[in-house]
Amino acid sequence: MTGRTRIAPQDEAAPTGGLVLAEGVLDLEGGLPLRLGGRIDPCRVSWRLLGAADAPVVAVLGGISADRRVCATPGADEPPGWWEKVVGVGRGLDLARWRVLSIDYLAGPGASTGIGADGVIPPLTPADQAEALRRVADHLALPKLRAVMGASYGGATALAFAADHAERVRAALVMGSAHRTHPHATALRVVQRRIVTDALARGEERAGLALARALAMTTYRSPEEFQHRFDGEAAETPAGWHFPVEDYLDHHGRVFAERFDARGFICLSQSMDLHSVDPARVAVPVTLVGMEPDAIAPLWQMRELLARLGPGHALVEVRSLSGHDAFLTDVEAFSSIVREFLDSR
Amino acid sequence: MTGRTRIAPQDEAAPTGGLVLAEGVLDLEGGLPLRLGGRIDPCRVSWRLLGAADAPVVAVLGGISADRRVCATPGADEPPGWWEKVVGVGRGLDLARWRVLSIDYLAGPGASTGIGADGVIPPLTPADQAEALRRVADHLALPKLRAVMGASYGGATALAFAADHAERVRAALVMGSAHRTHPHATALRVVQRRIVTDALARGEERAGLALARALAMTTYRSPEEFQHRFDGEAAETPAGWHFPVEDYLDHHGRVFAERFDARGFICLSQSMDLHSVDPARVAVPVTLVGMEPDAIAPLWQMRELLARLGPGHALVEVRSLSGHDAFLTDVEAFSSIVREFLDSR
Repeated sequence: MTGRTRIAPQDEAAPTGGLVLAEGVLDLEGGLPLRLGGRIDPCRVSWRLLGAADAPVVAVLGGISADRRVCATPGADEPPGWWEKVVGVGRGLDLARWRVLSIDYLAGPGASTGIGADGVIPPLTPADQAEALRRVADHLALPKLRAVMGASYGGATALAFAADHAERVRAALVMGSAHRTHPHATALRVVQRRIVTDALARGEERAGLALARALAMTTYRSPEEFQHRFDGEAAETPAGWHFPVEDYLDHHGRVFAERFDARGFICLSQSMDLHSVDPARVAVPVTLVGMEPDAIAPLWQMRELLARLGPGHALVEVRSLSGHDAFLTDVEAFSSIVREFLDSR
Repeated sequence: MTGRTRIAPQDEAAPTGGLVLAEGVLDLEGGLPLRLGGRIDPCRVSWRLLGAADAPVVAVLGGISADRRVCATPGADEPPGWWEKVVGVGRGLDLARWRVLSIDYLAGPGASTGIGADGVIPPLTPADQAEALRRVADHLALPKLRAVMGASYGGATALAFAADHAERVRAALVMGSAHRTHPHATALRVVQRRIVTDALARGEERAGLALARALAMTTYRSPEEFQHRFDGEAAETPAGWHFPVEDYLDHHGRVFAERFDARGFICLSQSMDLHSVDPARVAVPVTLVGMEPDAIAPLWQMRELLARLGPGHALVEVRSLSGHDAFLTDVEAFSSIVREFLDSR
């Protein structure tokens, strides 16, 4: 195991409370053996640690399009991170009190290892991402994280971490992800993967990714939100009839297609469908957050998971027009949830 | 307006109660002018009328894959119609008491006019299908139908008929369709149409239709039903990882692709998205049936429609694992609904 680390203490005079940023890559010797067979080799994991010097460490993981930049470095000229509104000095996850550790997902859009030159899609699971996180914790000499938390794909990874590495963490916060993917969500992802696979075969990777993302967008927000935002009239255009919702689908499709590699997308999409954690194996206290509605991890499934985890765990239910995406949009609710979760540990 | 009709009285000795079957085609002189512009010309409407001689006539319309064969002719060697379990002698819609009139949708899989040789997709609306039905009623000298009823696309058509031709019908039963399509359902259909359009452009019509239908299948049944039926383990195959739900998606995709023409599908799919009826214009009593859940016409939208129709109308709410497809699967519930609706008119 070899790693390279860059540590950048912030200017103590800056209004950032003296945070310390460390970033690096970790090369896993012998690669990473996968739960369902095979190996990612070579395997490099890109990580980031930001917060008050020597503060307890919390691992934070987002959806498949998230990366290690959970929030921007205070005072630096950086675009916002994927959870900027919840994580920062004085925010729900207060960087004056905690250090946030994150990684770029294997096969994701960051600097970790992606799909190999042979183009073969490995059967990567969230448990394998959890193993990569565990290796990073080893590398950083962090024997026990204060908490692991994640939403969506990151929720699956956090739950897998809690099941597989109970000795390495005190508690887990699992948002918008159950112990396995239910078949209706899988059906919608199967169609997405076929769109991209077909497009890849004819050299139209960007178009395929954009259309797959357009479909995925229908699963992240509630139908009621679509109704509020896009209930306009169809318009006749030279290219045919155009519906207001198409602008939204196309915008997000385009943005996604610029960032994502087609095979990496197929791999992470399949990874979510291969997610399976036996609730009986989870030996650390878990706080679940279920959104209503949520097409990805419906509340009834979160309740089933709570029942199967048994006593000592909790479920917070969040009703939101934003549906599955509530963890990104309902800043006040999720800031409170994160703060209370960390304060109780 | 010219028509050809074949009338086949059933053998009085057969246990069919002496039903009379009439079938025919109607060629609309000058074609059919469309609500949103343009014209279908030539325009032929294929129709079917079955039931006890001289019984009152009820028009019955199904989803986009339905045709004029609502049920098989009793005693004849025919496959079941699309609403066989609800319509027939002694059934919820009792052919000993009523005659059922139906049509093949324009651009649908039956014998009515489809897309022209130029391949241009007309902006066909459910209101245009209702107009075609009205022309058939003229042709058959039926000045006033006892009722018009429909489900899904047929519900949209029935509602449009009630709004546009109030003098031609006593009452309407509208199942699983609101006054317009909400943008979340449109988003899912936009993706379906793009899949088919892209496939058509490269000569892979069947594959495109099958994949689009696979996606559509995720909207017809509830996520809970998917969970019950397809919650098995993924299997590694030579072609990659395979999920149990894929067999279901593929089966229905294949069956649909064998019956449907790609351009006809695009036209009817767009037609559902162009559906728009002003509830204030509906001047006959309407009984709505809303399913819960229903990804196509959610219950909250059916309730909104009821409120906007004003007094004198009704909403029946049906909770079903089958979701939008409940009208096809919940035979007892829908037989009662249809019977009570007709008895009260």
